[in-house]
Amino acid sequence: MQKVNFAEKFETFSEHWRPKIVGSFDDYDIKLVKVEGDFVWHKHDDIDEVFIVMDGELDIDFRDGRQTLGAGEMIVVPRGVEHKPHASRECRMMLLERKGVVNTGDAETSDLTAPENVRI
Amino acid sequence: MQKVNFAEKFETFSEHWRPKIVGSFDDYDIKLVKVEGDFVWHKHDDIDEVFIVMDGELDIDFRDGRQTLGAGEMIVVPRGVEHKPHASRECRMMLLERKGVVNTGDAETSDLTAPENVRI
Repeated sequence: MQKVNFAEKFETFSEHWRPKIVGSFDDYDIKLVKVEGDFVWHKHDDIDEVFIVMDGELDIDFRDGRQTLGAGEMIVVPRGVEHKPHASRECRMMLLERKGVVNTGDAETSDLTAPENVRI
Repeated sequence: MQKVNFAEKFETFSEHWRPKIVGSFDDYDIKLVKVEGDFVWHKHDDIDEVFIVMDGELDIDFRDGRQTLGAGEMIVVPRGVEHKPHASRECRMMLLERKGVVNTGDAETSDLTAPENVRI
């Protein structure tokens, strides 16, 4: 059992849209990710997804409007809800998701689709 | 679907050791809590528990030693592992736990046992 320091973990990678697992509990993973630019519209049919902004600013477009999150803000995207994240500048986030989730959800596999289960 | 600002949520309560639910995903709750002083030794037989320190410093005693977490640090306490949190000064944390968890686990109910399902 070892504590995790988020700042140290963020120093170990630089790619965008490639979540890294830094801890697990029950059937869930705690992931850190750096994002910048546009992601794709997608949804996850059977899981809720938690976005917690740690540094920077994240826009999430929904079909009925945009939410903008700053550091220290969180949103839970319920299952089945289409969303498209976007960050004008690099943004650092924590994600909480059930194990095995594909980041691009139901969208077609693309270069934004991240390898699963990368643990740092 | 509404974003949550953690600083604003922390302003709404002052008690210690009384976790407040600020969001839920699948069968899990995201809770904020302020702690100060000693908690009781306890364990949770069938859930893992995530502690994320947001402000201040948290000690967690385990039967084989102590871990000290500062802001931006996390630890996952696996199911069945006895632990006793302690904070010399007020510490603000996020907890991730399956719904319905009793904060004092298998320890005898006491004035440290928090009401469940308090949502802010």
